[in-house]
Amino acid sequence: MQCWFTENQSPDLRISCRVKKVLHQERSEFQEIAVYDTGQYGRLLALDDVIMTTDRDEFVYHEMMAHVPLVTHPNPKRVLVIGGGDGGVVREVIKHPVEEVHLCEIDGRVIEVCKEYFPAISAGYKDPRVRIHVADGIEFVRQRKGQFDVIIVDSTDPVGPAEGLFREEFYRSVSKALAPEGLFVGQTESPFFNGDLIKSIHEGLNRIFPVVRLYLANIPTYPGGLWSISMGSKQADPLSADLKRAEGLKTRYYSAEVHRGCFALPLFVKQLISPGTPRA
Amino acid sequence: MQCWFTENQSPDLRISCRVKKVLHQERSEFQEIAVYDTGQYGRLLALDDVIMTTDRDEFVYHEMMAHVPLVTHPNPKRVLVIGGGDGGVVREVIKHPVEEVHLCEIDGRVIEVCKEYFPAISAGYKDPRVRIHVADGIEFVRQRKGQFDVIIVDSTDPVGPAEGLFREEFYRSVSKALAPEGLFVGQTESPFFNGDLIKSIHEGLNRIFPVVRLYLANIPTYPGGLWSISMGSKQADPLSADLKRAEGLKTRYYSAEVHRGCFALPLFVKQLISPGTPRA
Repeated sequence: MQCWFTENQSPDLRISCRVKKVLHQERSEFQEIAVYDTGQYGRLLALDDVIMTTDRDEFVYHEMMAHVPLVTHPNPKRVLVIGGGDGGVVREVIKHPVEEVHLCEIDGRVIEVCKEYFPAISAGYKDPRVRIHVADGIEFVRQRKGQFDVIIVDSTDPVGPAEGLFREEFYRSVSKALAPEGLFVGQTESPFFNGDLIKSIHEGLNRIFPVVRLYLANIPTYPGGLWSISMGSKQADPLSADLKRAEGLKTRYYSAEVHRGCFALPLFVKQLISPGTPRA
Repeated sequence: MQCWFTENQSPDLRISCRVKKVLHQERSEFQEIAVYDTGQYGRLLALDDVIMTTDRDEFVYHEMMAHVPLVTHPNPKRVLVIGGGDGGVVREVIKHPVEEVHLCEIDGRVIEVCKEYFPAISAGYKDPRVRIHVADGIEFVRQRKGQFDVIIVDSTDPVGPAEGLFREEFYRSVSKALAPEGLFVGQTESPFFNGDLIKSIHEGLNRIFPVVRLYLANIPTYPGGLWSISMGSKQADPLSADLKRAEGLKTRYYSAEVHRGCFALPLFVKQLISPGTPRA
């Protein structure tokens, strides 16, 4: 007998991983949480049957969500992560000399399941600088003003609980929750499959932030294998960041070279966010 | 009833595309050739049940296989494409002011099927500069000396008919078939799944060519979505290419910016081809 986990990436596209063992399945207040031991990717976390992270490729997403904004900000001390209950982004954030990392995850069960089944990913939860808030990220951000140097929105897809995290109204709250030199990043789906979403997010961000950028990361378990991350910044520009701090980090994907290269967008992606822009 | 085409990307990983219509299936002298009309990617060419190209994402691979080497070479006039029977690389090559493009494809049926079912991809076959040779690429290259400015090896995976196109002996023949300032590129599989292959290819190339480089392209229908292309050059270095010629090309993925960015390798990929190299 063979068992396969299948994600319907669209009505016309599926990715399937052979499951060696089902480690965990539950229905939380918010979603189905499942952990599978797969032949290809090691342990795999699925929420509502969508792959969130795997042991083998998690480093790409977590490094790129954390290090690009933290190296861009000249001196990040207070960091907020929205979502990200697996702990992977937090684990990367604390590689920097930050003072406080707040994690605001709506589903406390995701945190508990990941502590149990993904010890390497959730290792950062033990750090004394980390404070966990099991709460709605939209509300949490709305109640904070000028407090954070960096906010990282590590959400699920824009359906279900995470839908509001892709709205212009939310990005306005994020801007208000940031300190005067603050910046934020959020995962913004696939350039191949979600071009319209990326376009409309960037139109909104351009109305709110003086500096708006898009960068890319290669994540095999996400649809199309190429993922976009959007940045809105009040001042610092990732394209002119001092990359010395990138050099001391212990990473497997991110480097100073990757920091520069990830903003080199394929032409069709560049045209999504800056229509009519002449070619560089 | 629903029909799905499934590629076994590994014993543990599958990608499946919903098939609206089976347009063609045959067994040629060398392989199974199939064309499906899919919901996700439009028309899809499969050889031995492995996705070769699709209408929706073919531009990425074909542009990156052609324009990076042709812009790197200071004045390419004579170009050879090995494999590439769909014609996509040829279509991109003839956007440059070359004098001759030779295509050497082992399976003439692939050419005929693509002329019929992929008119946009195979459009370049009509150009008078293009000469088609239905022959074994290994033999073809062995018989040529100092003739080509650029050789592009657009092969299937290193199993079956294409196996010899990944051997050091073949790369030595390629070097001899190149003019004194010549260079070649070849598709060299996935950095996530075929790291050992890429490492050993680069060890071989470093014994043959003064300039050896690796670059990446994002191709959703290839395993992991990230693909590597290797370059061996007798003189010209893509990192110091004059990118003015990149600007006039009609493309959707490639640009001067992408030319620079595609050589910015994720750290784990960089370490594959230059172990022990300090971080940039």
